[in-house]
Amino acid sequence: MPSKEISKRLSELKKLKTELYHRDFLLTWEKSLDEIKAVAIIAEILKCMHKENINTKIFETGLAISIFRDKSTRTRFSFASAVNMLGLSLVDLDEEKSQISHGETVRETANMISFLTEVIGIRDDMFLGEGNKYMREVADAVEEGFKEGVLHQRPTLVNLQCDVDHPTQSMSDLLKLKNYFGGFEKLKGKKIAMTWAYSPSYGKPLSVPQGIIGLMTRFGMEVTLAYPEGYNLIEDVERLALDNAKKSGGSFRKVHSMEEAFKDADVVYPKSWAPFSVMQRRTELLKKGDREGLKELERECLANNAKYKNWECNEKMMRLTKNGSALYMHCLPADISGVSCAEGEVSKEVFERYRIHTYDEASYKPFVIAAMILTSRFKNPYKILNMLLNRKVKRIKD
Amino acid sequence: MPSKEISKRLSELKKLKTELYHRDFLLTWEKSLDEIKAVAIIAEILKCMHKENINTKIFETGLAISIFRDKSTRTRFSFASAVNMLGLSLVDLDEEKSQISHGETVRETANMISFLTEVIGIRDDMFLGEGNKYMREVADAVEEGFKEGVLHQRPTLVNLQCDVDHPTQSMSDLLKLKNYFGGFEKLKGKKIAMTWAYSPSYGKPLSVPQGIIGLMTRFGMEVTLAYPEGYNLIEDVERLALDNAKKSGGSFRKVHSMEEAFKDADVVYPKSWAPFSVMQRRTELLKKGDREGLKELERECLANNAKYKNWECNEKMMRLTKNGSALYMHCLPADISGVSCAEGEVSKEVFERYRIHTYDEASYKPFVIAAMILTSRFKNPYKILNMLLNRKVKRIKD
Amino acid sequence: MPSKEISKRLSELKKLKTELYHRDFLLTWEKSLDEIKAVAIIAEILKCMHKENINTKIFETGLAISIFRDKSTRTRFSFASAVNMLGLSLVDLDEEKSQISHGETVRETANMISFLTEVIGIRDDMFLGEGNKYMREVADAVEEGFKEGVLHQRPTLVNLQCDVDHPTQSMSDLLKLKNYFGGFEKLKGKKIAMTWAYSPSYGKPLSVPQGIIGLMTRFGMEVTLAYPEGYNLIEDVERLALDNAKKSGGSFRKVHSMEEAFKDADVVYPKSWAPFSVMQRRTELLKKGDREGLKELERECLANNAKYKNWECNEKMMRLTKNGSALYMHCLPADISGVSCAEGEVSKEVFERYRIHTYDEASYKPFVIAAMILTSRFKNPYKILNMLLNRKVKRIKD
Repeated sequence: MPSKEISKRLSELKKLKTELYHRDFLLTWEKSLDEIKAVAIIAEILKCMHKENINTKIFETGLAISIFRDKSTRTRFSFASAVNMLGLSLVDLDEEKSQISHGETVRETANMISFLTEVIGIRDDMFLGEGNKYMREVADAVEEGFKEGVLHQRPTLVNLQCDVDHPTQSMSDLLKLKNYFGGFEKLKGKKIAMTWAYSPSYGKPLSVPQGIIGLMTRFGMEVTLAYPEGYNLIEDVERLALDNAKKSGGSFRKVHSMEEAFKDADVVYPKSWAPFSVMQRRTELLKKGDREGLKELERECLANNAKYKNWECNEKMMRLTKNGSALYMHCLPADISGVSCAEGEVSKEVFERYRIHTYDEASYKPFVIAAMILTSRFKNPYKILNMLLNRKVKRIKD
Repeated sequence: MPSKEISKRLSELKKLKTELYHRDFLLTWEKSLDEIKAVAIIAEILKCMHKENINTKIFETGLAISIFRDKSTRTRFSFASAVNMLGLSLVDLDEEKSQISHGETVRETANMISFLTEVIGIRDDMFLGEGNKYMREVADAVEEGFKEGVLHQRPTLVNLQCDVDHPTQSMSDLLKLKNYFGGFEKLKGKKIAMTWAYSPSYGKPLSVPQGIIGLMTRFGMEVTLAYPEGYNLIEDVERLALDNAKKSGGSFRKVHSMEEAFKDADVVYPKSWAPFSVMQRRTELLKKGDREGLKELERECLANNAKYKNWECNEKMMRLTKNGSALYMHCLPADISGVSCAEGEVSKEVFERYRIHTYDEASYKPFVIAAMILTSRFKNPYKILNMLLNRKVKRIKD
Repeated sequence: MPSKEISKRLSELKKLKTELYHRDFLLTWEKSLDEIKAVAIIAEILKCMHKENINTKIFETGLAISIFRDKSTRTRFSFASAVNMLGLSLVDLDEEKSQISHGETVRETANMISFLTEVIGIRDDMFLGEGNKYMREVADAVEEGFKEGVLHQRPTLVNLQCDVDHPTQSMSDLLKLKNYFGGFEKLKGKKIAMTWAYSPSYGKPLSVPQGIIGLMTRFGMEVTLAYPEGYNLIEDVERLALDNAKKSGGSFRKVHSMEEAFKDADVVYPKSWAPFSVMQRRTELLKKGDREGLKELERECLANNAKYKNWECNEKMMRLTKNGSALYMHCLPADISGVSCAEGEVSKEVFERYRIHTYDEASYKPFVIAAMILTSRFKNPYKILNMLLNRKVKRIKD
């Protein structure tokens, strides 16, 4: 008999209408609200099952492939954990840049690695206008391979961070918020400040703040996006956030002051990113391999960042929030003043107070990825989860 | 009850006499015709089982080791898929060249990595006279370890491409041909043109063309090997092909014109390779680490290649083949004119028409490797396959 | 019904009192004698089970993480084998040095990679005073994560070699000795010579000789540590060996002559290492990234080594041992005169005579690591082993 924790969530799940079967997970805003909720709830159920030592293996054999076009430790381990939990074996594609320079090869490689592959996870967040496009090229390729009978199954694509969205992160953040406040419905009216913060580095992707404003506006939250003049995100995503807010009964506004954003906030998410225009110039320079240009851009950008060193999440800032005790969030690793850098996104004191909260926030990610895979590969996730619960196989023998 | 597809192949398999148990798979011509057929048919059965969602796991635990002394994506994934399908975990040996410079260390390393290892897959195709020799050194080492009681089991070696043969490729090609024409017996009398083709690169191994002429001549095919003067293969293999053809009632001839080879061909396999003599010089230069010499050789060789740009498989060439519609084959990736290079092995139009066929050709490889392992580790593959079919365990739960 | 081999060891195991549950394995001298014996015996049982084709999988899913801060092939494969045998999937953390430069990040990374992780194996033997410390930092971090509820389980740490000890090696050596002489009790009074030997390289870690003198002195052996003046080990470990010997009724002495150490020895373990003082200077230079200094130190150290070329284990030396037939041991790879170097630790003749013995010595390591994990993750290893034996599941199907 499933635990109370699991039973409660199974009932929630049962009410939701989803069409996730055979669909990739590339952007949260391509999914309906029910679908977002379903993936989140399944992630929670899988987390409970892991905690309760219930075996979640649904594949006896099969590969999961990761393609990391940017260095990663955390997402790499989350993906490794997710696929392991379902019974798949991970193989990393160590892609040479030269091999993927034209569409022909993407199409071919995608099929060549997929004969026994159930899921492909891709991180490609370096080039504006590229990452998400590349994922769709891979998706089209395996779709063709499947339709032509070359592949026995159509591998699912999971976006492990692109230039536009970082859905496995924002979904983990959503679950942290859900559990912190006590349910999806409790998010309504809660104030979240997604703000830029100072960091002595540049070129950080836009996908985290974009993911947050694109997702939290759908739950009736009052979302404030704050950044210094010029640190814009992709315009389409800012517009989308506004539309979402209208529909959900929440709100979305932009301000250019950290203080203003923090005022009365229930949640703060201070994080550095590069301005959209800088990322565009950087993309051009990276494509050209213009090292001198990149150095010059970095110098310029760091000098510009340095004007905003006061965008630090410290005790003084935190006192502006609701009862001085907003929840501090971060996708990690944070640039912590006096710890990982002289001056950074967050003071040592604030970070330390919320450190375990940030670990907890991260702890959902493996299960979110597993839920994305499960919903895409099984027509009836509710039935599959019940099968797993009823077969009573322990994950660790005793 | 097994599907018709599977039952039919099981009956074919039952008739074959094989002694593959505890034998490595290093060269197709070390195997009897029955053994070649058995491995091919088992590969097909495993492919059907995968398609029909039947669990093919026969190992509960155990390692498979890959040693790639040359870069590879495709074969790497085929090997990873094959061992996963059987229940083994892949570990890649990232070998330092210095560690393997003398026999002593090969012998020791081979044993040190093999205590729980069931199969070792090796790709070593860079140095003429080396790759296959190295595989046999590893085989001798684990043989000694097993006999001396150091190893509980004797890992099987699978040749993932050497200087002499590329058996996992040629066996996949054989299966493509078998299924394209409708049976092994239908290959008799079919004309296949294994021809050199122009490519703006040099140093491509000889093992693919050698593998093709060494294998297809055993099935009564009329094999034409075509290359510009000077682009010889290893003499022994050319001789072997001639002997095979005599025994099988097929034929083997060499010509120096692509047109002549294509004439009335049922199958064409146009692919670039370096001349034997160039590979010999290259081996010397690589051993010496003579960079200047290698650059000079490359320049010279590319200049020589450039004389034969007309060795391109294009529509005009294809019209020479039987009814203008021979099957085009390639081990991939092909150098496609106007796509992956300005001028290459095959025109865009021809390649596009046969693209899905080439994917299909590649799709057999994981199953061929799995069949090589299965036949080497189990005395009675027929019995094991029946056990897998009768235990009725699904690969993916539902 | 378990085999005689297994039954005998199960009875031995039953008598031992251990508290290994939820404890890391970092230093053999942190474990009681009963605990050392229990881990050794469980390793033997697992080795028998592997040989007898009994499935030892106790985890259905779960990750094992390896962190290698020094190159390794052998230990890497032993760890890979051990975790595979228990049902875990290996993921290697390819750590950037910059990421681990301060405690904060170690703490965070340790948790971020551990959400579904059952064991973390670490090799960190380059810097004196660092390796073991780092392992304890990781241990503290996951301990905190577990207590705070971030981690559902507390991953076990296994020391795969540090600056102080190399427990997986010394435990394998212990098992070789136990089986060579016929039981733990037979080790009492046996003479083992752990001696320095000449090698044309420098900077070899001290952890192997330290591990040997720290462990074998606990079994009543007469341990002689021999090295040229100045090639000291860590003083604390030499002192510990003396204490151990007093308690166990064995002996521990230091001499500065290989001949003296070999005299009447039952076992010899000739192996090169760098003097403690050199390792200290090297640690400083490595930290500073002082290439010139490192080169100078190497030159100096090699010149010093060269004074002791007569510290070679050859036939003449071996004739000094008991009946001229002591057991030769080595952790491998050995520097073999005339094979892997001109002059080295051991002559070709001696090494060849004992080669298979050294392979056998190494063969325990995967099972030792598996036993370390099993005892740390299961309260009652005796019960778990019986469960594995009674469930009668074969590792390889037939």
